[in-house]
Amino acid sequence: MLITKADAQSLDRQDVFAPLRAAFEMPPSVIYLDGNSLGPLQVSTRRHVAEVVARQWGEGLIRSWNTYDWIDLPTKVAGKIERLIGAPHGTVAVCDSTSINIFKVLAAALHARPSRRVIVSERNNFPTDLHIAQGLIDLLADGYELRTVDANDLPGAIRDDTAVVLLTEVNYRTGRKLDMARMTRLAHASGALMIWDLAHSAGAFKVDLMAADADFAVGCGYKFLNGGPGAPAYVYAAPRHIQDFKQPLAGWFGHAAPFSFVDDFTPSPSIQRMQVGTPPILSLAALDSALDIFAGVDLVALRAKADRLFDIFSSIVVPECPDLELVTPRDPELRGSQIAFRFGEAYAAMQALIARDVIGDFRTPDIMRFGLTPLYLSHEDVWRAAHILVEVMRDRLWDRADYKIRAKVV
Amino acid sequence: MLITKADAQSLDRQDVFAPLRAAFEMPPSVIYLDGNSLGPLQVSTRRHVAEVVARQWGEGLIRSWNTYDWIDLPTKVAGKIERLIGAPHGTVAVCDSTSINIFKVLAAALHARPSRRVIVSERNNFPTDLHIAQGLIDLLADGYELRTVDANDLPGAIRDDTAVVLLTEVNYRTGRKLDMARMTRLAHASGALMIWDLAHSAGAFKVDLMAADADFAVGCGYKFLNGGPGAPAYVYAAPRHIQDFKQPLAGWFGHAAPFSFVDDFTPSPSIQRMQVGTPPILSLAALDSALDIFAGVDLVALRAKADRLFDIFSSIVVPECPDLELVTPRDPELRGSQIAFRFGEAYAAMQALIARDVIGDFRTPDIMRFGLTPLYLSHEDVWRAAHILVEVMRDRLWDRADYKIRAKVV
Repeated sequence: MLITKADAQSLDRQDVFAPLRAAFEMPPSVIYLDGNSLGPLQVSTRRHVAEVVARQWGEGLIRSWNTYDWIDLPTKVAGKIERLIGAPHGTVAVCDSTSINIFKVLAAALHARPSRRVIVSERNNFPTDLHIAQGLIDLLADGYELRTVDANDLPGAIRDDTAVVLLTEVNYRTGRKLDMARMTRLAHASGALMIWDLAHSAGAFKVDLMAADADFAVGCGYKFLNGGPGAPAYVYAAPRHIQDFKQPLAGWFGHAAPFSFVDDFTPSPSIQRMQVGTPPILSLAALDSALDIFAGVDLVALRAKADRLFDIFSSIVVPECPDLELVTPRDPELRGSQIAFRFGEAYAAMQALIARDVIGDFRTPDIMRFGLTPLYLSHEDVWRAAHILVEVMRDRLWDRADYKIRAKVV
Repeated sequence: MLITKADAQSLDRQDVFAPLRAAFEMPPSVIYLDGNSLGPLQVSTRRHVAEVVARQWGEGLIRSWNTYDWIDLPTKVAGKIERLIGAPHGTVAVCDSTSINIFKVLAAALHARPSRRVIVSERNNFPTDLHIAQGLIDLLADGYELRTVDANDLPGAIRDDTAVVLLTEVNYRTGRKLDMARMTRLAHASGALMIWDLAHSAGAFKVDLMAADADFAVGCGYKFLNGGPGAPAYVYAAPRHIQDFKQPLAGWFGHAAPFSFVDDFTPSPSIQRMQVGTPPILSLAALDSALDIFAGVDLVALRAKADRLFDIFSSIVVPECPDLELVTPRDPELRGSQIAFRFGEAYAAMQALIARDVIGDFRTPDIMRFGLTPLYLSHEDVWRAAHILVEVMRDRLWDRADYKIRAKVV
């Protein structure tokens, strides 16, 4: 079915999310298909950060730890994330980076399964997840092993030697989505714990950690949550683990009484135990504000719009661009909120698009990736972006030397 | 020698740092003696953060990793810190929290001394330093031991079983300063490595890590460096360790090629290997801007002014307030940039001061602590603050029930 511009505009007129576009501050000429890498700024977030800087830090100074309740800001932000990922109250902490939070939960999982020595993950997992696992194994130097296999081979790889399974629900390159409930059952059936990386899940669709019975989870604040570049990450522990998980980064903010300044470490009895050092208030304030938009959002309806955006984009691009290989599953159950193509000149083609104000991103070696973020993308935006991509491919507009020069960050 | 208000004003007229006060945005009524806990906001920092939010994040979006060189921002900020602590180019990374950086360097030190099992520290070290050491020891579960002793007993405690000595140069409560060069020699004489926590040193006086021959160091961005609440921390490795130190938090930003997205971890050959996850750009931007004021600052002259401020404060308070026990050494060589007193009702007395716009802080159980920060404190400020403290003590203004109610953060 060919979707016309008029069809897209008609969908926009019925779109319950259309009014939210005005909450965002993107340049009007830009069609931003990279919100899965760095979410855009909201007007309210810009104002809130300015207020926190000038009023809370500038005027309040040290007093703001109490008067503006900075001390509880991580918990407040965590509450806003909990409802997006099916996490009960008091199971999420907002702190540090996704990488560091993976370290904490992997160590906690190995501690909880002392007789087992294997961490299972997927070969194509986001590299930092695997690096962190390897770094922990090297540190422990006690016969631990990182076993990575292709996604299809996971069932056979999870065995009675497996302490923990570490998986990212949505693959960062292809957008392929794993079955969280099924994989968690597999892990548990072997006596292993299950950790989910929700970097490309939270804020894109409804995640239900409790229904899936996950043990731990981590995720990122700066992608679909729009928290700003390098926003603090989050970490979840299932209620059954809150009392007794042990994470090795025992800093003062994870202490039961951080300001008692006693020498013995008494870990907080709550999820607060995931905290380590002083929270980065400015970055945290941006994330706090950015999350407010989700309060009124039905995540099922959000995802339904993302699926329509996928259909518009794919229905235009796939027939017209035989050189682009669609690597994202067509079945909505099997994918996250992006659409990705394989193409030998993916880097140059993405540069050609960016030069035309269509911003997606390139993932080495040959992936063009487009995030589908219904809070601020209209159906017409996606319709236009698809046609610009068709033009870039049809007219080989990517075939310019300057588009092939790799930037430092790609 | 009694210093009069006219004396203080006269000192202010000759003060080369006096013009810098206008760079800071504190409320005019406040005398801020807590810059050793949270440094104040600068006008240029407020503007820079607003610019980074609106222009770099809001308009630049993902492109700003290249166009505004976010990718090298940690290195740029590190360069500004290097000159404050006697660190050669390429030896400092800015990342994560002080706590997490302690974990990295402790693990690196233990890895470099595989046959030794003891971490030596001071009993009265800042608690998080000890907690992090304990957390690492518990994780390694391999016969490691944390040996903490009083500062005076350190020489006897550093023995041939000692892998690493972890000390904070300036004690957070008393302001007592350890002899960095001497303690480092002691550590090295026993074959141990030496880690310095510079939380209360950098930006307060000239630190020379190279002259002291330190192995590793960590420090805080939000105290004397004025980087904002929860600003990123920094970590130093001596040039001789850069090639081969191994830290266990192996995240993608510490990879030799973060955007190659390869599955094997090839650590960066540079200090960049201390990085873990995506840098918190907003918080980092604040620190970046805040550090600029130090470019024109002679740290020896800065410290000389801090010593004058100490003398003014102590010469007024000590004779007039017999209930306050000065716990900070009078010898400038033996102290950092603060003055602290012991008093049974320290918490209430500090509340009484804060109610009169003199902001210092309380450290449990009985310490009143005042930071001496010459970039924005005048001699007259300190003269006035001292007299207000005298009044609070003389007239027992602290003896009010509401001043004794402890806030959440103290």
